Amino acid sequence: MHDHPVAPAWQINQWFNTQAPLDLANLRGRVVVMHAFQMLCPGCVLHAVPQAERIHRQFAEEGVTVIGIHTVFEHHAAMQPVSLQAFLREFGVTHPVGIDASLPGQRVPATMQTYAMQGTPTLILIDRIGCIRLCHFGRMDDLALGAEVMRLLCESG
Amino acid sequence: MHDHPVAPAWQINQWFNTQAPLDLANLRGRVVVMHAFQMLCPGCVLHAVPQAERIHRQFAEEGVTVIGIHTVFEHHAAMQPVSLQAFLREFGVTHPVGIDASLPGQRVPATMQTYAMQGTPTLILIDRIGCIRLCHFGRMDDLALGAEVMRLLCESG
Amino acid sequence: MHDHPVAPAWQINQWFNTQAPLDLANLRGRVVVMHAFQMLCPGCVLHAVPQAERIHRQFAEEGVTVIGIHTVFEHHAAMQPVSLQAFLREFGVTHPVGIDASLPGQRVPATMQTYAMQGTPTLILIDRIGCIRLCHFGRMDDLALGAEVMRLLCESG
Amino acid sequence: MHDHPVAPAWQINQWFNTQAPLDLANLRGRVVVMHAFQMLCPGCVLHAVPQAERIHRQFAEEGVTVIGIHTVFEHHAAMQPVSLQAFLREFGVTHPVGIDASLPGQRVPATMQTYAMQGTPTLILIDRIGCIRLCHFGRMDDLALGAEVMRLLCESG
Repeated sequence: MHDHPVAPAWQINQWFNTQAPLDLANLRGRVVVMHAFQMLCPGCVLHAVPQAERIHRQFAEEGVTVIGIHTVFEHHAAMQPVSLQAFLREFGVTHPVGIDASLPGQRVPATMQTYAMQGTPTLILIDRIGCIRLCHFGRMDDLALGAEVMRLLCESG
Repeated sequence: MHDHPVAPAWQINQWFNTQAPLDLANLRGRVVVMHAFQMLCPGCVLHAVPQAERIHRQFAEEGVTVIGIHTVFEHHAAMQPVSLQAFLREFGVTHPVGIDASLPGQRVPATMQTYAMQGTPTLILIDRIGCIRLCHFGRMDDLALGAEVMRLLCESG
Repeated sequence: MHDHPVAPAWQINQWFNTQAPLDLANLRGRVVVMHAFQMLCPGCVLHAVPQAERIHRQFAEEGVTVIGIHTVFEHHAAMQPVSLQAFLREFGVTHPVGIDASLPGQRVPATMQTYAMQGTPTLILIDRIGCIRLCHFGRMDDLALGAEVMRLLCESG
Repeated sequence: MHDHPVAPAWQINQWFNTQAPLDLANLRGRVVVMHAFQMLCPGCVLHAVPQAERIHRQFAEEGVTVIGIHTVFEHHAAMQPVSLQAFLREFGVTHPVGIDASLPGQRVPATMQTYAMQGTPTLILIDRIGCIRLCHFGRMDDLALGAEVMRLLCESG
């Protein structure tokens, strides 16, 4: 028994940087670092996206899966999949990124709603048994993030 | 009489951050800082575009006109006008920006060809009498750029 | 039984930022982050010392003790205690710092020799049972360091 | 005739990085960038001293002389000449630096008093005819500084 909420499934329209779609249910046993971003959000471009990529490169082999979710809630026409794809390539993003599913007539996409995110960038840490352990809106420093990721890695699944 | 090449006219499809189209011929008497960029070029986003904006804010009243030219030569579908417009707004770009005119069947747009630019970011300084005095591909540091802009400001028109 | 070397005792002439001298033997049960520095070593001043102070401020309550060791092995006359004291105050260092004991006729001080350090900055992590788990000469990034500190915090003493 | 105050002579006890003492009177015809610093002032170490060194390296051949004045007004025992000498060497300072002359029974040294400086870092620009054109206490950005230096270089002596 535990107190932490179970992380809801992602609702993704399209994936990049992965052969097959990713499903949270299949990631049990791994620590998941999920970051929600928009490709035209300065805080994401300058800080959160490169930070997520650093985590991916440093901790993938230790049992961490990093996932970006492109949660477009403004300027929808400006951030279509073709633009995101070029962004990921030009900015050297190699970790898997999914496009959050849009909902008919709604500005905020599905996963963003399900997780009740306040905006971008948002960083969410999910433990080995699939529970949300940290949800942070805004900038998070590397020292604290490295520690929180390791805290979850040190737990048995 | 002088040795510096006359700056060719810009060929622009659409302008942002200006009421009326800008024409180099009408800027005689002013120092023009022209920077060519792509909204998905990391060196532009992280360095050249914010630097151009700083010049605009510090030197506009001293007689400097800063112009961005969006010279898309790759990922054309990813950097359409609607995306550029959102980029300019989100990244706080307030100086005038023009979209370099595309040429039928050609990857490299018109002004970029006319100026024989090698890529983005490219910074071009044009003096008060309309001649090119500096053309720099890549990153330029603030100290040198501040000096070069002032060197041209100190010349009589 | 374990494979990691036991951390040798420190040999300190004078302490700053602590009421009483600190002894490694009394820190069992805590994770110890020990950083060797010189107040005129640029890599220390610009990176390692502020990083150590950040660890102190973020992790002291979680069970981490951060200790600076001033290991002067060059420019001895330039880095006397009176200069170190002013440095610590002006640069906002609040964690305990000890001056490594000099040895008669020797350039390299005692603790620096005992730990076989290569230079400054050097970062050493000591686990809850007093063993050396990491010894890093040069710059270490925040993400990796936060993770390594937490890895040791997650071990039972 | 002009309105700018004539820069007073420097009162220096000891010089580093120069064969012979420097005298402002002998620098007519050159633009002089004079920066007052203390080797244990963080704003100086992190920003003003490296900035002054950059100016020296970029503009020395264009007619700029950069001078550092070590104006110790606090922690006097901590910043003696032997410490300053090591600081200059370790931090890669190659431009001339003079130690501001102390006055009997006074905390603030002579040149600092004569120029009525408020603290460190202070940056002072002196034109080709020996007049003070800018006096800035605190941090100054590279873009503005590069421009101000060039403004004076563009004046005839």
